[in-house]
Amino acid sequence: MALNSQADDLLPGPVIALSGGVGGAKLALGLSRLDLDADLLVVANVGDDFEHLGLTICPDLDTVTYTLAGLSDQEKGWGRADEGWRFMAALDQLGGESWFNLGDSDLALHTLRTGLLAEGKSLTQVTRAITLKLGIAARVVPMSDDPVRTMVQTSNGALAFQHYFVRDRCEPVVTGFVFDGIAGARPQADFLAALADPDLRAIIITPSNPFVSIDPILDLPGVRAAARATPAPVIAVSPIVAGQAIKGPAAKMMAELGMPSSALAVAEHYGDLLDGFVLDHGDQDQADAVAGLGIHPLVTGTVMVSLADRVRLAQEVLALARQLGP
Amino acid sequence: MALNSQADDLLPGPVIALSGGVGGAKLALGLSRLDLDADLLVVANVGDDFEHLGLTICPDLDTVTYTLAGLSDQEKGWGRADEGWRFMAALDQLGGESWFNLGDSDLALHTLRTGLLAEGKSLTQVTRAITLKLGIAARVVPMSDDPVRTMVQTSNGALAFQHYFVRDRCEPVVTGFVFDGIAGARPQADFLAALADPDLRAIIITPSNPFVSIDPILDLPGVRAAARATPAPVIAVSPIVAGQAIKGPAAKMMAELGMPSSALAVAEHYGDLLDGFVLDHGDQDQADAVAGLGIHPLVTGTVMVSLADRVRLAQEVLALARQLGP
Repeated sequence: MALNSQADDLLPGPVIALSGGVGGAKLALGLSRLDLDADLLVVANVGDDFEHLGLTICPDLDTVTYTLAGLSDQEKGWGRADEGWRFMAALDQLGGESWFNLGDSDLALHTLRTGLLAEGKSLTQVTRAITLKLGIAARVVPMSDDPVRTMVQTSNGALAFQHYFVRDRCEPVVTGFVFDGIAGARPQADFLAALADPDLRAIIITPSNPFVSIDPILDLPGVRAAARATPAPVIAVSPIVAGQAIKGPAAKMMAELGMPSSALAVAEHYGDLLDGFVLDHGDQDQADAVAGLGIHPLVTGTVMVSLADRVRLAQEVLALARQLGP
Repeated sequence: MALNSQADDLLPGPVIALSGGVGGAKLALGLSRLDLDADLLVVANVGDDFEHLGLTICPDLDTVTYTLAGLSDQEKGWGRADEGWRFMAALDQLGGESWFNLGDSDLALHTLRTGLLAEGKSLTQVTRAITLKLGIAARVVPMSDDPVRTMVQTSNGALAFQHYFVRDRCEPVVTGFVFDGIAGARPQADFLAALADPDLRAIIITPSNPFVSIDPILDLPGVRAAARATPAPVIAVSPIVAGQAIKGPAAKMMAELGMPSSALAVAEHYGDLLDGFVLDHGDQDQADAVAGLGIHPLVTGTVMVSLADRVRLAQEVLALARQLGP
């Protein structure tokens, strides 16, 4: 380990973190405090993205960006801290669609992005300009510059993701997911390059929703194959702790899809893609079963309340990556 | 006059008010308090409109709308009262173009409009939906659903209107104006219909800037001819009082264009289009010269400080229209 760690310091290589919104952004923030700088490549899901009021809104990308910039609202889990709501009040007054909350400050990002996209800039270029301006050292990229839109199949028919998630408050019973556009979507260029980099140190699947945050990234053409082909370890952190999702509908979805709401079921869902799996102390009884899948388990505290929790968990995941690495 | 007034009450017809921003909106507000309801057709200049941050912004249309809805900021003369500025602060933080101020509440209108235009709605349809929602009884329409963009010719070259007006604070010396797109722009349908309406009561040229607020409307194909052909009187209210513009660069422009900054010069500028011209007590020495142009002068108080001023001036203009009418 000591030698590996030194070699790691001498010969840095990319660390890929696949992320959705809140849970993923928390671990990404921890990773961003480990002096990886631009070696940290946070790949954000765009399946949640949608066009609303003429604006292109990228909730996961923005949660990652705001979190890494220290601007996020930690209470709500989305948007910016110290936010104002005059825009929403005026929109409601004018009869506009007001089911999706957009804060006054947050709007600047959506407006700026929509304008730059209309000028022909790619989502990658827009995101780079914004993250540089906000002083974020890590590279934050969308999983693809091509649009992919998650449709949630429910017992009442298919729903666009934000209609399911925000408008209908995750109430419809889920039967499956379709990622519109994914067959023709190219993984983002830096992401592809990092996957093929012989110095790649790890692919970290953050504790975001496996079905709607991580699967869209993994389902991009060539990504699973590249993740299997790389000698770098693939390590997932369970978003399920003691049968519950820390935030969001992951546990509810698992029940509706007929699988146990457990950390083990998450490990089984990712299957042989994984080299390592991080589960909470509360789920240590599932560690042996994870090992039985041929996946190295790490039992630790995975609930990230404080910044110290985020950094400590990130350190442990990177240590596991060194341990499992080639 | 008494008979005319009764006939007027029995047989109402449209009253057209041509308007730019602040000054025009003040008189439009006065007119809107005279129980004209939908007979009042406020035709707003769109030459000031521009695309900014991906949004379609219509400053004159919005000033009229906010003013008639009682939402305008009377101090600033644009935007909404009780406005917030988080959006601008965040935009600046992200490195976006921040020379044009957009308030947090005001943004709802621009965003809603841009989204509806992108869906294929016309500017007329969007404006109607918004003014109805805000409880405005008068009809407020853009002068055209086709884009017309005022270019200000200056000694330093041509500038898009908002670049001249806001970004460069009207500092460049003006040599002329070009209204891009005007040759192919159709006057808005209700405006055309009212111009041809045999019951048309008056065309009122509000005290907005003659060169950049009113001329774009008059220069639309067919508008001057229709204004000349109608038996209804055309009456302008001078935006120049005692050699100064109440607000904006009208007087500065007149000096730069080599004409006196006077009410009389405004009357001469509109020329034989006018049947009546309303000038301030302070300019009563010019009334005879106005009459010498074949234009009926009305000397009264034209500076609108209070709502009562707006209503009283509107009443006097309508009374003059009845006096000059067929």
